[in-house]
Amino acid sequence: MAKVADQYLLVHPWKIIEAGFHADRSRVSESLFSLANEHQGVRGFFDESYSGESLAGVYLNGIYEERFNEAMAYKGISNRLCFMVNTVNWLYTRLELDGETLDLAKSRFSNFRRELDFRSGELRREFVWETKSGRKLHLVFLRLLSMETRELAYQQIYMTPLNFSGKVTLTLGLDFSMPHRMFEENFWDCPRRAAGAILGMSKNIHHRVFAGMRVDAEAEQMPVEAEKFVGGRLEVDLVEGQETTVSKIVIVHSDRDPQQGLDTAWERGMSQLRTSQKTYIEVLEQNRMYWDNFWAKSDITIDGDPETQQGIRFCIFQMQQTYRGVIAGANIGAKGLTGEAYNGNAFWDTETYCLPFYLFSNPLAAKSLIDFRYRTLPQALARAKDLDCEGACYPVATIDGTESCTLWQHASLQFQPTTAVAYALWHCMNVTGDTDFLKAEGAQMLIEICRFLASRGQWSATGKFGYYAVMGPDEFQMMVNNNAYTNYMAKRTFEFTLQTLAGMDLEKLGCSAAELEEWQRIATAMIIPYDPETGLYEQHEGFFNLPHIDVDAIPAEDFPLYHHWSYDRIYRNDMIKQPDVLMFMFLYNHSFSLEEKRANYDYYEPRCIHESSLSPSVHSILASELGRHQEACDFFRFATRIDLDNYNRNTGEGIHTTSIAAAWMNIVYGFGGMRSDGELLSFHPSIPAHWSGYSFQVFYRGAIIRMEVSQTEAVVRVVEGKPVRIKIGGRETEIGQQGTSVPVKNREFTG
Amino acid sequence: MAKVADQYLLVHPWKIIEAGFHADRSRVSESLFSLANEHQGVRGFFDESYSGESLAGVYLNGIYEERFNEAMAYKGISNRLCFMVNTVNWLYTRLELDGETLDLAKSRFSNFRRELDFRSGELRREFVWETKSGRKLHLVFLRLLSMETRELAYQQIYMTPLNFSGKVTLTLGLDFSMPHRMFEENFWDCPRRAAGAILGMSKNIHHRVFAGMRVDAEAEQMPVEAEKFVGGRLEVDLVEGQETTVSKIVIVHSDRDPQQGLDTAWERGMSQLRTSQKTYIEVLEQNRMYWDNFWAKSDITIDGDPETQQGIRFCIFQMQQTYRGVIAGANIGAKGLTGEAYNGNAFWDTETYCLPFYLFSNPLAAKSLIDFRYRTLPQALARAKDLDCEGACYPVATIDGTESCTLWQHASLQFQPTTAVAYALWHCMNVTGDTDFLKAEGAQMLIEICRFLASRGQWSATGKFGYYAVMGPDEFQMMVNNNAYTNYMAKRTFEFTLQTLAGMDLEKLGCSAAELEEWQRIATAMIIPYDPETGLYEQHEGFFNLPHIDVDAIPAEDFPLYHHWSYDRIYRNDMIKQPDVLMFMFLYNHSFSLEEKRANYDYYEPRCIHESSLSPSVHSILASELGRHQEACDFFRFATRIDLDNYNRNTGEGIHTTSIAAAWMNIVYGFGGMRSDGELLSFHPSIPAHWSGYSFQVFYRGAIIRMEVSQTEAVVRVVEGKPVRIKIGGRETEIGQQGTSVPVKNREFTG
Repeated sequence: MAKVADQYLLVHPWKIIEAGFHADRSRVSESLFSLANEHQGVRGFFDESYSGESLAGVYLNGIYEERFNEAMAYKGISNRLCFMVNTVNWLYTRLELDGETLDLAKSRFSNFRRELDFRSGELRREFVWETKSGRKLHLVFLRLLSMETRELAYQQIYMTPLNFSGKVTLTLGLDFSMPHRMFEENFWDCPRRAAGAILGMSKNIHHRVFAGMRVDAEAEQMPVEAEKFVGGRLEVDLVEGQETTVSKIVIVHSDRDPQQGLDTAWERGMSQLRTSQKTYIEVLEQNRMYWDNFWAKSDITIDGDPETQQGIRFCIFQMQQTYRGVIAGANIGAKGLTGEAYNGNAFWDTETYCLPFYLFSNPLAAKSLIDFRYRTLPQALARAKDLDCEGACYPVATIDGTESCTLWQHASLQFQPTTAVAYALWHCMNVTGDTDFLKAEGAQMLIEICRFLASRGQWSATGKFGYYAVMGPDEFQMMVNNNAYTNYMAKRTFEFTLQTLAGMDLEKLGCSAAELEEWQRIATAMIIPYDPETGLYEQHEGFFNLPHIDVDAIPAEDFPLYHHWSYDRIYRNDMIKQPDVLMFMFLYNHSFSLEEKRANYDYYEPRCIHESSLSPSVHSILASELGRHQEACDFFRFATRIDLDNYNRNTGEGIHTTSIAAAWMNIVYGFGGMRSDGELLSFHPSIPAHWSGYSFQVFYRGAIIRMEVSQTEAVVRVVEGKPVRIKIGGRETEIGQQGTSVPVKNREFTG
Repeated sequence: MAKVADQYLLVHPWKIIEAGFHADRSRVSESLFSLANEHQGVRGFFDESYSGESLAGVYLNGIYEERFNEAMAYKGISNRLCFMVNTVNWLYTRLELDGETLDLAKSRFSNFRRELDFRSGELRREFVWETKSGRKLHLVFLRLLSMETRELAYQQIYMTPLNFSGKVTLTLGLDFSMPHRMFEENFWDCPRRAAGAILGMSKNIHHRVFAGMRVDAEAEQMPVEAEKFVGGRLEVDLVEGQETTVSKIVIVHSDRDPQQGLDTAWERGMSQLRTSQKTYIEVLEQNRMYWDNFWAKSDITIDGDPETQQGIRFCIFQMQQTYRGVIAGANIGAKGLTGEAYNGNAFWDTETYCLPFYLFSNPLAAKSLIDFRYRTLPQALARAKDLDCEGACYPVATIDGTESCTLWQHASLQFQPTTAVAYALWHCMNVTGDTDFLKAEGAQMLIEICRFLASRGQWSATGKFGYYAVMGPDEFQMMVNNNAYTNYMAKRTFEFTLQTLAGMDLEKLGCSAAELEEWQRIATAMIIPYDPETGLYEQHEGFFNLPHIDVDAIPAEDFPLYHHWSYDRIYRNDMIKQPDVLMFMFLYNHSFSLEEKRANYDYYEPRCIHESSLSPSVHSILASELGRHQEACDFFRFATRIDLDNYNRNTGEGIHTTSIAAAWMNIVYGFGGMRSDGELLSFHPSIPAHWSGYSFQVFYRGAIIRMEVSQTEAVVRVVEGKPVRIKIGGRETEIGQQGTSVPVKNREFTG
């Protein structure tokens, strides 16, 4: 894991700050300075446009387009790619002074500074532009997405001439002509336009996006219109030394329903624009209150490590921006709303990495994520049919519930998305104690998932049950038999389903006793490759016989391997990309002894190259449990700053949103030693040697629990709500506002 | 193997005959009535065009185009497809009478008869056309490709009015506007045109095809020209009861060299057209002599089974038409020159199935096939590099030596094309005794092949050597470890190479002693999955543990499985598509005991669904050896008539050229019991119960050996050349013109 930080932002507990423009990191900054409010995501691109390296992107949750690959002549291979499509640039601005147009790739400028504040969600950028004629204009660009009224957004421009008085020309607009950069193609038609309002309709899927704006400026506005653009041209009189403000209030509405008339979409947007009268300052104040409230409940503090403090707050801020359970039917793309990589598709990362964050900070959002899988059950049923199976197979990658992964070797062979849904149902129920959803929608989902798992698996000649031709979470072992993760998770899924259905009215559920018996037989007969002598789970049948490769001997320049190694070469040795056996040992942590975890960690970790950005945190969490505290810190090192320091050199494509969730887990499950798979929530806190202390809070059974850890002790108490029972340091106890404390000994967990 | 004959042609020992037009089999007939002379292949489409189901195709050996699939972002995955492209329709004819244009899909006609004569290569078609006005015109269309002058072709039309005298209008031409039907696209530009001559240049690759014609008819000819067409319009006076002839002599030249000037291509074609003065009848006579001579040496006679007699002659005729070693650098496409399926690409079928036919009927052609692999060694070296390997990796599918298989799971995982080249070198040497090529070009090829095999394989933790993530010949087990076929063939390749290089000047060969030592170590340490208790070779590691599927229980409507089963479903049980273990037991027949062959046949045959058209013949050959004579006959049943009776229902796409070669092997190796992998050629003849006798001839060490088998005895003798030593019925003997005889006992081989 020879990853090297590329740190160029200033360290600050509540902000990211770029002092002086770093043109060579322009795309990275665009990702980092992204704003979002779940409804929309706006990359930190320059309002006035930038002719250098840039990916100007504005993405709306659930607004996507489709693209068909050349179809393969085989059944069950999806050739339809859905992608979150670039939409409307409502920040469109052109600035002319003395016949020169502002463009930081070409113009002379100084005193550049850009700040994103996690306590308000305000993005501020300022600099002094000096024209060829020597005029100096101090400019401040502000932008804001309302956290209260999600369609509402603001742009604010302050202009102060430093050495002249005179006219500046501004063009402000709403621009649907941006290309979707992944395919260098624009996907919008604009069937309606008026002064300051425009309706876009996406070309293939006919999603609609309304954008409307009102500009507040002391200047005459001349309307400007083009096929996919509406806006206005302003001549603004500037006076030396005086600040002039231009404000733009914007409404961005989206609608996926193709049945909805254009009139309706138009009228709804126009009406909201008319009634939105709050000023920038008022909405900024609302946002501040929103974030204050949020941080009060979900902050993680780290004392003695300002970089990590900044890093983890950046992570939490981005998670909350991206998703908070406001929009029904939304999910979390691998890059959130910050870029086009992974096409805005959601993966099993949602259930496995993101869900815990929400479960312990915003249980309603967690429920909404599970609800996404319930809403898309019909698509999962159809997908299983495509695969000649029964029941429901959840997609590897999706926006709308259909399979959007066009690589058959993943889409047809990976079933961790399906078992992850069952796991999520179990995990939520286990943490919240709430069985209402489980006994209704949950039962339906579990039945269909079991039907899939029963029909996709096969009985061996010796009367055992297993999964053949699968790929586990470790994507470096492509098409194997009886992957331990797949089989183990399936076994647990069957068992949980049987337990859930016990006593329920099977007939009403459309399910037979014979089916349940078969599932019981399958669960009992499930092959789990395991060597009792060594305590090692074999990642799949034959894994132990694979040729060994020393992953540390692979030259750094060979990474990422997908780009430098011939495709098949990756798949024919005992190197793994990410945790597989260790993954199920993390998920069902209580089901394995410390000795088993140690044996398997010692065997698999040295074989893992952590090519998935999700891998190090899981290893860090287990290393903490095993008392390998230095190792835990090493794996953690870049968890919170994977994007801020661009460790993978691809932050320019967007934020690693789901890895950011893993960073949260790394602190809470790793150092905090929290486990949520037992009967009670439990903690075994440890602390990195260079931290003086840290704290986090988790929602649990109606209470908010606060954990404060110093180098000597950990204090846990309820800060809101009723007392709850938990386990700490292996001891079961009820805690209230008084709380309890345990000494922090950096040692192995014991129970 | 529930395959059902669809027999509609008349049975004749030397012809295929269609009496009465079978419109529902129009494409099948087009394939069956194909003509070829290695240089070009012409499907049996109607000269006058046909608006019904038709694939009008004229293909030239080595003239191809390319097409790029959407590139995958992974190394070593080829996205360039080469395909033998449809070229020029030199048979273009339009016939008008009484304002009506002849089209057998619409016109009234009777007495349709079509014949292809294996003794001349003449295709004759006749019928009586009756116009709406009641005029009856008897028409005969003849076509012929010269076997002596390969660019030369003829069309001959006889017209006899039965109840009128009057004018008929004929348009004859050379048409480059035909679509390549697989992609519904035309790939030609025509930079030169003149009266009766046209030069085509293919759009991407710039291959050139010259077509020139001279029409001989008693009529005035008006030139007709279009962008991709030249021709002439003839008004011909017909007299009731009298036959009028229109003849067209055609030259079709091809050139792949993009450096060659258009002038050169044009002049060469024009000059050959000028100097070609032979009449149709003269060339027909030449062809008759050619084929008489061929049949005298390579005929197979079968007494008492006229359908099989017709079938095997059809097979041999098609093989010889397609390839006879005349054009340097040519190979044999899976459909020969008879259709667009498989894109005209050659596979390992060439070395494994076709080569024996040529080796024993036309050794020079066999050498040319091997020479193809020598010529394309540079491409194989480049392909190995793409796969991060050393040495030479031969392509799965190719026209020009580059990999044209765009499915990575085949192109990156299948190595039987590479070991087949080494096998071919060994097999040719073993049969001919000739080591000149082997010690020169052959040694170079073997060294590079071994380098590839050494670099692609891996050492296991236990010090054994094997191949991981491979697909063997059985394409229903996709990505497995230590496929027995791959490993066994690699081991033999290393051993043969070491034996070949022994005593040679290594330095001159650019090869080191250390390399040879490494190859020896690899050969010795090669993993060959084998169970000594049962004598079973395990097709790959873990095969014996796969879930079992009863292949006989698969519903007939599920076939072909690739179309009806989800892709991954095919790959997760112990069903196999074609012989894998049995394949190497056939190729190195002497290396395995009868008991081993019986054990493995009994195990693998019931698991095989024979979805490859090559599969039944190999099983038939082994069944004969094991004394399973009824089973041998059952598998053989459709070998010779796979296309004539359209058993796979896809003959419309083209002839199964390589399966046709397997039909030849099925008789010679199967019933004749010939083995060519021993020190001497050996025979163990048997005979199907319903045949009264059969005979075949093989070239061997400068002699032609004739084998005549009756129900009681087999007589083998030399009919041309010096006496040779062979083994017959287990006994070594020298045979001359007198020959020797053995009793035919339908029993197992014994040695």
